[in-house]
Amino acid sequence: MNPDIRRERENASFDVDKLTNILNGGPEKTKRRREIEALVFSDPDFREEDPNFLSRSERYDQAVRKSAQMILKLREYGIADPEEIYFYKSCVHPGRPSPLDLHLAMFLPTLLNQATPEQMERFFMPTWNLEIIGTYAQTEMGHGTHLRGLETTATFDPATQEFVLNTPTVSSIKWWPGGLGKTSNHAIVIAQLYSLGNCHGLHAFIVPVRDMTTHEPMPGIVVGDIGPKFGFNEVDNGFLKLENVRIPRENMLMKYAKLEPDGTYVKPPSSKLTYGTMVFVRSMIVSESAQALAKSCTIAIRYSAVRHQSEIQLGEPEPQILDYQTQQYKLFPLLATAYAFTFIGQYMTQTYHRISGDISEGDFSELPELHALSAGLKAFTTWETNSAIEVCRMSCGGHGYSRSSALPDIYVEFTPTCTYEGENTVMMLQTARYLVKSYRQAEAGQRLGGIVSYLNESQDRRLQPQAVAARPSVVDINDLSSLVEVYKQRAALLVEMAAKSIQQELQNRKSQEDAWNNSAIDLVRASDAHCHYVVVKVFTDKLGEVGDTAVHSVLSALALLYAMHGITKNSGDFLQAGLLSVPQVLQVSIRIKELLSQLRPNAVALVDAFDIHDKKLNSVLGRYDGNVYEQMFEWARRSPLNATEVHESFHKYLKPLRSKL
Amino acid sequence: MNPDIRRERENASFDVDKLTNILNGGPEKTKRRREIEALVFSDPDFREEDPNFLSRSERYDQAVRKSAQMILKLREYGIADPEEIYFYKSCVHPGRPSPLDLHLAMFLPTLLNQATPEQMERFFMPTWNLEIIGTYAQTEMGHGTHLRGLETTATFDPATQEFVLNTPTVSSIKWWPGGLGKTSNHAIVIAQLYSLGNCHGLHAFIVPVRDMTTHEPMPGIVVGDIGPKFGFNEVDNGFLKLENVRIPRENMLMKYAKLEPDGTYVKPPSSKLTYGTMVFVRSMIVSESAQALAKSCTIAIRYSAVRHQSEIQLGEPEPQILDYQTQQYKLFPLLATAYAFTFIGQYMTQTYHRISGDISEGDFSELPELHALSAGLKAFTTWETNSAIEVCRMSCGGHGYSRSSALPDIYVEFTPTCTYEGENTVMMLQTARYLVKSYRQAEAGQRLGGIVSYLNESQDRRLQPQAVAARPSVVDINDLSSLVEVYKQRAALLVEMAAKSIQQELQNRKSQEDAWNNSAIDLVRASDAHCHYVVVKVFTDKLGEVGDTAVHSVLSALALLYAMHGITKNSGDFLQAGLLSVPQVLQVSIRIKELLSQLRPNAVALVDAFDIHDKKLNSVLGRYDGNVYEQMFEWARRSPLNATEVHESFHKYLKPLRSKL
Repeated sequence: MNPDIRRERENASFDVDKLTNILNGGPEKTKRRREIEALVFSDPDFREEDPNFLSRSERYDQAVRKSAQMILKLREYGIADPEEIYFYKSCVHPGRPSPLDLHLAMFLPTLLNQATPEQMERFFMPTWNLEIIGTYAQTEMGHGTHLRGLETTATFDPATQEFVLNTPTVSSIKWWPGGLGKTSNHAIVIAQLYSLGNCHGLHAFIVPVRDMTTHEPMPGIVVGDIGPKFGFNEVDNGFLKLENVRIPRENMLMKYAKLEPDGTYVKPPSSKLTYGTMVFVRSMIVSESAQALAKSCTIAIRYSAVRHQSEIQLGEPEPQILDYQTQQYKLFPLLATAYAFTFIGQYMTQTYHRISGDISEGDFSELPELHALSAGLKAFTTWETNSAIEVCRMSCGGHGYSRSSALPDIYVEFTPTCTYEGENTVMMLQTARYLVKSYRQAEAGQRLGGIVSYLNESQDRRLQPQAVAARPSVVDINDLSSLVEVYKQRAALLVEMAAKSIQQELQNRKSQEDAWNNSAIDLVRASDAHCHYVVVKVFTDKLGEVGDTAVHSVLSALALLYAMHGITKNSGDFLQAGLLSVPQVLQVSIRIKELLSQLRPNAVALVDAFDIHDKKLNSVLGRYDGNVYEQMFEWARRSPLNATEVHESFHKYLKPLRSKL
Repeated sequence: MNPDIRRERENASFDVDKLTNILNGGPEKTKRRREIEALVFSDPDFREEDPNFLSRSERYDQAVRKSAQMILKLREYGIADPEEIYFYKSCVHPGRPSPLDLHLAMFLPTLLNQATPEQMERFFMPTWNLEIIGTYAQTEMGHGTHLRGLETTATFDPATQEFVLNTPTVSSIKWWPGGLGKTSNHAIVIAQLYSLGNCHGLHAFIVPVRDMTTHEPMPGIVVGDIGPKFGFNEVDNGFLKLENVRIPRENMLMKYAKLEPDGTYVKPPSSKLTYGTMVFVRSMIVSESAQALAKSCTIAIRYSAVRHQSEIQLGEPEPQILDYQTQQYKLFPLLATAYAFTFIGQYMTQTYHRISGDISEGDFSELPELHALSAGLKAFTTWETNSAIEVCRMSCGGHGYSRSSALPDIYVEFTPTCTYEGENTVMMLQTARYLVKSYRQAEAGQRLGGIVSYLNESQDRRLQPQAVAARPSVVDINDLSSLVEVYKQRAALLVEMAAKSIQQELQNRKSQEDAWNNSAIDLVRASDAHCHYVVVKVFTDKLGEVGDTAVHSVLSALALLYAMHGITKNSGDFLQAGLLSVPQVLQVSIRIKELLSQLRPNAVALVDAFDIHDKKLNSVLGRYDGNVYEQMFEWARRSPLNATEVHESFHKYLKPLRSKL
């Protein structure tokens, strides 16, 4: 092991394993996670060539091979718990989505949720046994976020008892579904249902897209890969053009809505039933943000402990770059964020399970809050993580740009989370809609419960933009609960400002919709402040559960850094609202520097606690043993351009050039 | 042409060509630029396959072919002006660096600057005729920014009159030089010169690395490609390991420093002579920031004009997404930034030429200022542009992730500018060193000239952190010169705070070096504020040169937006310093919304004025004609995964899987 990184570990002030258990949700979880990792990483069937050395087609090929193996092994080992399947998969395809993801995570669950018993009879076993390989085709070239705008049609033909499916325009071609291009032979197609001349809105249809024996496209179907992307190179995101494709009436998923043989449409009993999945997926993305950021911090901080550069003291040995204040200021707030997001991810998962328990008992009361929270936190955490990964990458100097660092891959595989499952700005506006609605309820005298209950207080206190001069003095910037309070008041104020902007626009005779659009900047800002408050609060609450003194101490420093860093980055908000005074903001800057020094000796141990297996990290810079340079050289020598000593282009172009000049 | 985008152009309030000429530096420049573009883009020899559809080796191959063609054509057409060569190259390899870049931009110029007449005799013609293909090997695996730390040695052996070159450790292996991996047969190697037992520091040596006939590596040399990176796929960035490689004494570049045959070392007359190139390259990067951002804005804004989504008014047609306030708030400040950076790029180039004129007449007085300015602005503009490109990409929804949008490529090719030619944080600290030095000179009663002269004023006024309450009232937020003034005062204050932080540390008995490191956060912040001030000032000054009323009006709105957006993003600074009051900051937010509406009708015309050729943009989303979806479908169908209807992995893995389940 590299002596620098060994010394870092020796100097840690807390027991790393204890913290790992907290992050995993208990020692049992840590144990089981390590078991699954050992299972996958010791399995020769999952050995792979570094995808960075392969062509797109070879990458896809390798991913299909491993996915097929994975299906076999999961059954062999009897791994059936969804969480464990998910984790197993994340080891088989470390950090990368795979061609069968939509089959497992969308096609199969949609069947389970929306198929009638008869349909289950027909489709379930073939799907389970991979005779049917499915995907979920919703997004079109011209429509993503705004589902009502989808143009694909499924028109019922009573004469033949069939639906006729069409993508009538170029913009209606299905676009993006994972696994659609080359892998799937079936798709659940979301289309506007027409029957007897009426449109009944969007419904789901099972459409065979390729022949189950030959895998050739079915008649009327044009299907293929949408081409290379930023990341997702293992996945054949596809397009699907439908030209009078006929499927039996029984291929419409009819557990809820129905179409009778005579063309009569029967409405579903409730529209809220599909809400849950969306909330669940967004909660998962919050945890994925934490994971991506934990990986990036692990790489950047370990590398900063072994990389030496420049001089602080002339003539002295070059210091570890982790000793530079600027490097600490780049990385430690992100480390704190990785912890904050891990805890908010846990919180979201717990809240989801609690509320979905209520829902299954018919209690939908907390669903709107959960929906708003998951939308906002999905946007908040993915945006933060997205830019944070790049800060980590650039903090590694030139080597961060090498694919061997893994940081470019972490970025390109993560960044789509800002757009899929709900575009982030749209998500923030959905959260804002809930906040403004709650604000108005409070204004109308209703007592709010749950996480927005702070909007009652703002009514009670009647906050003004220039706040009471006396308030700042009561804030103790070294006290986390005091900081939670100022974050809360900031959120309350920004929600109020957004609501008032809408009101102002309405008074200027704007329509409700224009008033909303003309206040959108304020609305996004309010949602952002709300989410920020929730994250600071949950991190602070989490400290109350930590018994071990040493762990508690280092986590408290991280929580304080997270809260204080957010204040300096948004100091205008806090000053504008009169929540903090100018001297307090200056004090916060000074305290941040102290916290950086305080966290410095524990930095490596704090990333070690994420306990990310070297094979999962797959980074030359982030290796546990710190032997960076030797491995980088070894990796480079395997680069395909080094397969021959002299590249053919020398003989083809460079040598002949001489005689022409 | 797409009717939406045609209507946008019809609604523009100014003459696009007039603005293009301002951006290009005059109608003559526009004309010549278009001539060169036509020359390249109509030339069948430069036709290429989309690199996104090729393997790394094929991309490299295609780039070498085009580079060889380019050398021939440049001579054929007699294009010899460096600026025109640079532009021609940027059309041949649109947006991409090429394998011969370092031969042309580093090897050849270094030869011209540092070779003796005898060396020119030996090396120039072979280099000119591409018999010698060279690169510049400075960076090592373990050392980038801190040049003094380089470990490669060149030890003089008087007995044979040779230098013996070695990379004595793994970390000293030369790493990153472009064209080193496969293309070059020579390298200018930067190494520590040892003679008669003494080390004389870094010098440049011409080292043959491959045989000029067979292109096989020379004895003692291990050379190759460093492997795939984030971008730069056409370039064979390489490694070079030297094991007792012997070169004649005459291969040390000896125009300035010399080594006599008896091993006596002769110092160079001045150390400032190599300064100029560095300053020039950094100035170029500022203009490249402007160009990358102009491209990104062109793509995002044109696409936002043809993309329709969602509903502002229920039941109305879906609006262009450019009508959403959130979309305008994402893109228009970036559009303003692209203009600001274009003008600061022009300013840097002019300043460089003016001062290098002085230098050639022996007047070095303005060099430190130029050096500080180019370092800071390089960092400031590349950081801003780096994150701005990603905002543009994500503003295009899912399609921004497709390689067909060109946005992923713009990002990965641009992002290295944050690290190469001086790591950005280090650059900011260099600028800060100059600012603090100037501050101290002013404090000591010296009158400062040039761009830091504002530091005199801060001495005159003796600014305090809590500023005089009376000052804010004199600021007119709608007056650009008034905003320049507050940016200036913010910079002055932050320089003062950084200087005082150092002083405070020194009083706490810290060493000079630790005091500096412990103030580094403040120092970077001060540099950032200084650069921000310069950019706002130069943009404002530029308006004075614009005669056309319509163009002046739209540029003024952009300048105002740029300045005001910077204020809201850094409102804490302005409030903390008492430079603006809370009501003023609120007013700025409201004015920004008005400016967004005001700029909306001209948005497409403002990106058209950048006049970026479709072939240079190479983006399906940013096409001039707006026919986005048809072209995206066509592009996708050419994806290599669609070469066969059924991918072989179906037969290899998926079909056999069925029988096993």
